[in-house]
Amino acid sequence: MPPFPAAPDKQALEEGTTFAPRFDANGLVTCVTTDATTGELLMVAHMNADALARSIETGEAWYWSRSRGELWHKGATSGQVQTIVEMRVDCDQDALWLKVQVAGDGGCCHTGRRSCFYRMQPLREQADAPLRFV
Amino acid sequence: MPPFPAAPDKQALEEGTTFAPRFDANGLVTCVTTDATTGELLMVAHMNADALARSIETGEAWYWSRSRGELWHKGATSGQVQTIVEMRVDCDQDALWLKVQVAGDGGCCHTGRRSCFYRMQPLREQADAPLRFV
Repeated sequence: MPPFPAAPDKQALEEGTTFAPRFDANGLVTCVTTDATTGELLMVAHMNADALARSIETGEAWYWSRSRGELWHKGATSGQVQTIVEMRVDCDQDALWLKVQVAGDGGCCHTGRRSCFYRMQPLREQADAPLRFV
Repeated sequence: MPPFPAAPDKQALEEGTTFAPRFDANGLVTCVTTDATTGELLMVAHMNADALARSIETGEAWYWSRSRGELWHKGATSGQVQTIVEMRVDCDQDALWLKVQVAGDGGCCHTGRRSCFYRMQPLREQADAPLRFV
């Protein structure tokens, strides 16, 4: 697919119908991935332009692994391929939302859990309590 | 509250009960905010250490506005205050998930919409179609 365009102005960025993702200084956009069936937040990751183009073209989630410094077809080794049911973009086009169906054992996190968000931070008067696994 | 500690190692970061958020080079962590009732993704924003400490202490969402370069008590002017029902952290502690109840008119996005994610990017053979408002 052709390179992603830049939006001409704020009005076009926020109210237009042109997809003009704003990559940061490292060439990345933030991507929030939820389970299309349960709505659960599974992971937060990043895409560069190549990963984003592949995700759109194939309908499967590709990311940019910042820790490994390489393109990452999620599930290529684990079988936990994410089929994208819907892709959304936010108002200023620097964040994406993927609703996915997870193949394989249905997991997502490299620790073996279904979601990466398996710990809760207590609030207010419990603020100093340790993280709770939930 | 005291400064946030650094995790001593990867094992503690991922499997420990110490909250050790990993701020990026700009001193920020990514924060995903969903509606505690509907599960809808409302917004993606950022917190610095001060915003995070205030959020934990008050139970209301404080962010760091990158565009304005200032601490941001969400809803202070709009009335759309976000009461945090639950705060979670991901495996490598560089992303947070807030489940919130929104006060005021229940909105979130500065464009007047409930969620910032009001446009859909078509996939696969429809990839070149314009964004759809949904």
